[in-house]
Amino acid sequence: MRVRNAIALLILSGACSLAAAQSPWQPLPKVAPAPADNPTTAAKVELGSMLFFDPRFSSTGTVSCFSCHNVMEGGDDHRPTSIGVHGQVGGRNAPTVWNAAFHSVQFWDGRAPSLEEQAKGPPVNPIEMGMPSLTGVIGRIAAIPGYKPYFERAFGSGDVVTMDNAAKAIAAYERTLITPDSAYDRFVRGDEKALSAQQRTGMDKFLSTGCMSCHQGATFAGPALPAGTGFFMKFPLFEASPYVAQYTLTQDQGREAATGVATDKGMWRVPTLRNLTYTAPYMHNGMVKSLPEAVKVMASTQLNVSLADSDAADIAAFLESMSGPFPKQTMPRLPATPGDLIGTGAE
Amino acid sequence: MRVRNAIALLILSGACSLAAAQSPWQPLPKVAPAPADNPTTAAKVELGSMLFFDPRFSSTGTVSCFSCHNVMEGGDDHRPTSIGVHGQVGGRNAPTVWNAAFHSVQFWDGRAPSLEEQAKGPPVNPIEMGMPSLTGVIGRIAAIPGYKPYFERAFGSGDVVTMDNAAKAIAAYERTLITPDSAYDRFVRGDEKALSAQQRTGMDKFLSTGCMSCHQGATFAGPALPAGTGFFMKFPLFEASPYVAQYTLTQDQGREAATGVATDKGMWRVPTLRNLTYTAPYMHNGMVKSLPEAVKVMASTQLNVSLADSDAADIAAFLESMSGPFPKQTMPRLPATPGDLIGTGAE
Repeated sequence: MRVRNAIALLILSGACSLAAAQSPWQPLPKVAPAPADNPTTAAKVELGSMLFFDPRFSSTGTVSCFSCHNVMEGGDDHRPTSIGVHGQVGGRNAPTVWNAAFHSVQFWDGRAPSLEEQAKGPPVNPIEMGMPSLTGVIGRIAAIPGYKPYFERAFGSGDVVTMDNAAKAIAAYERTLITPDSAYDRFVRGDEKALSAQQRTGMDKFLSTGCMSCHQGATFAGPALPAGTGFFMKFPLFEASPYVAQYTLTQDQGREAATGVATDKGMWRVPTLRNLTYTAPYMHNGMVKSLPEAVKVMASTQLNVSLADSDAADIAAFLESMSGPFPKQTMPRLPATPGDLIGTGAE
Repeated sequence: MRVRNAIALLILSGACSLAAAQSPWQPLPKVAPAPADNPTTAAKVELGSMLFFDPRFSSTGTVSCFSCHNVMEGGDDHRPTSIGVHGQVGGRNAPTVWNAAFHSVQFWDGRAPSLEEQAKGPPVNPIEMGMPSLTGVIGRIAAIPGYKPYFERAFGSGDVVTMDNAAKAIAAYERTLITPDSAYDRFVRGDEKALSAQQRTGMDKFLSTGCMSCHQGATFAGPALPAGTGFFMKFPLFEASPYVAQYTLTQDQGREAATGVATDKGMWRVPTLRNLTYTAPYMHNGMVKSLPEAVKVMASTQLNVSLADSDAADIAAFLESMSGPFPKQTMPRLPATPGDLIGTGAE
């Protein structure tokens, strides 16, 4: 009897740890990782939040990080592709900033190895924030005297109003933009009632259809890789899919445009599937308007599977279980603007 | 003894009410007035805050009330003149939304009789938010299903997702954007230490120079007038002032452009002087960059007075005492966007 119980216990615990090791379903960690040289602190988060919301270091003074990464909603801009300074329309759909902290590389083509490096991109992109140089960006910030105490609180005294520190602060703030308590996460952590019957069906179909060959891990953006190492995939893989022409999916060269390497043509960072409820329209070009349609497009172009509408609806219902809740955002007070910061409209 | 006391009391109370009646210095009320048909409620303020921050009812989905009225800073956009959809540059400096609730008319030319009517202007201004019609605006809002419960909470059941209700909600939110506890207000309410010696000197000079012939009342935007009745003044009044050419002050026709009445040429609503610390650059065209310079321009063009730099600095110091503190803004969560709300960039 005692032996039997012990064996039963062994089997049970063995089964459990086996299940844990093999389970494809991982909840999002409650804290985002930070690099050794930029530990997250409250002072950095406060400064980073101010910089994130401040439009004054775009050339026209009208475009902030927040403009295309609206943390009041999906962390993107609900447009097919974004609009920067002077009404210029960019070429790609704004990726959500929610949970970007968990990605090992940033941008659709993975060209930035960290949030810190990513933050230095858009300010000097001529279509996005349009500043002539990063020196110009930090010059604008330094010209707003009220910022200095916040830099000093975050980075100590001395010559701390630097672009590197500004980027570190923005990255620190972005590491707080995570959603680890979605219905999906609660389900995986043991709350069996967190998902509806349709969502559980969708979860099974998501797995059996093969979506997880790419969309795996806690963010569904691929396996855990070291910071700076991206998880890329060819998209579209099956170019005969009718969706390729319908949604002009091969028009953009993908990672090749960043690296110049021919084999990177059509390669893309596998994006997260979290918070899709809030990030329509979909794909790198924002051409696909509804989530069930996006599911069908991906099944067709990546797995050569033609999904029935009901299957797509079930999978979409499961994907919606990975949305929110979003941490409450406090609105920073921004320091006053000197009158000569931004000119007469010619910038 | 009893009679003497009574007389003393009479004298005392007489003196007090006389002082109160004659004092030119009025603190800002702690609550903004609301029209009888739109009493301020928490549910309206919540909805109004969401609409105020939502860029999705501009044609491109990129411009919200908040874009030009940044309540994280001066309630304006720190630009000489504002930028709307497609990078278009407007003709006038964005007036601050802080304390606009106390104005009897809105816009630089006073063409809107209420905050409710003002809210319906920018969405259909082709340069600002660029929507073809107010029907189109409310159509966009109605197409975001998550808004409906908020309209119902604020306005009851039935056909409540209307443009009039949206405008009422925005106005209700704006009535919370007030700054009644500035150093100036605390001084006028009895805290003699609230102003510095220079600010008290500036206060005397502000009065003796004649600034209060226009900039009077609690907002320094003129006498209390019934809602819909504006307090207008010719600007510049002394056209021989050298500042007129220097800052192109007569290029804009002012109120005439709104009314078509020749006598309205060069007439402007007298703007508030509160929160000037945060609203550089100055004037209807945003051409004047510093506050002391703005003081000199006004003295010259309106009073034919050439102020010494030290006088302008003292008056500017006094004006700065009317800044903030700003009520903490909570960031609303905006409902999710249907994928077909905003098109492919051609709007």
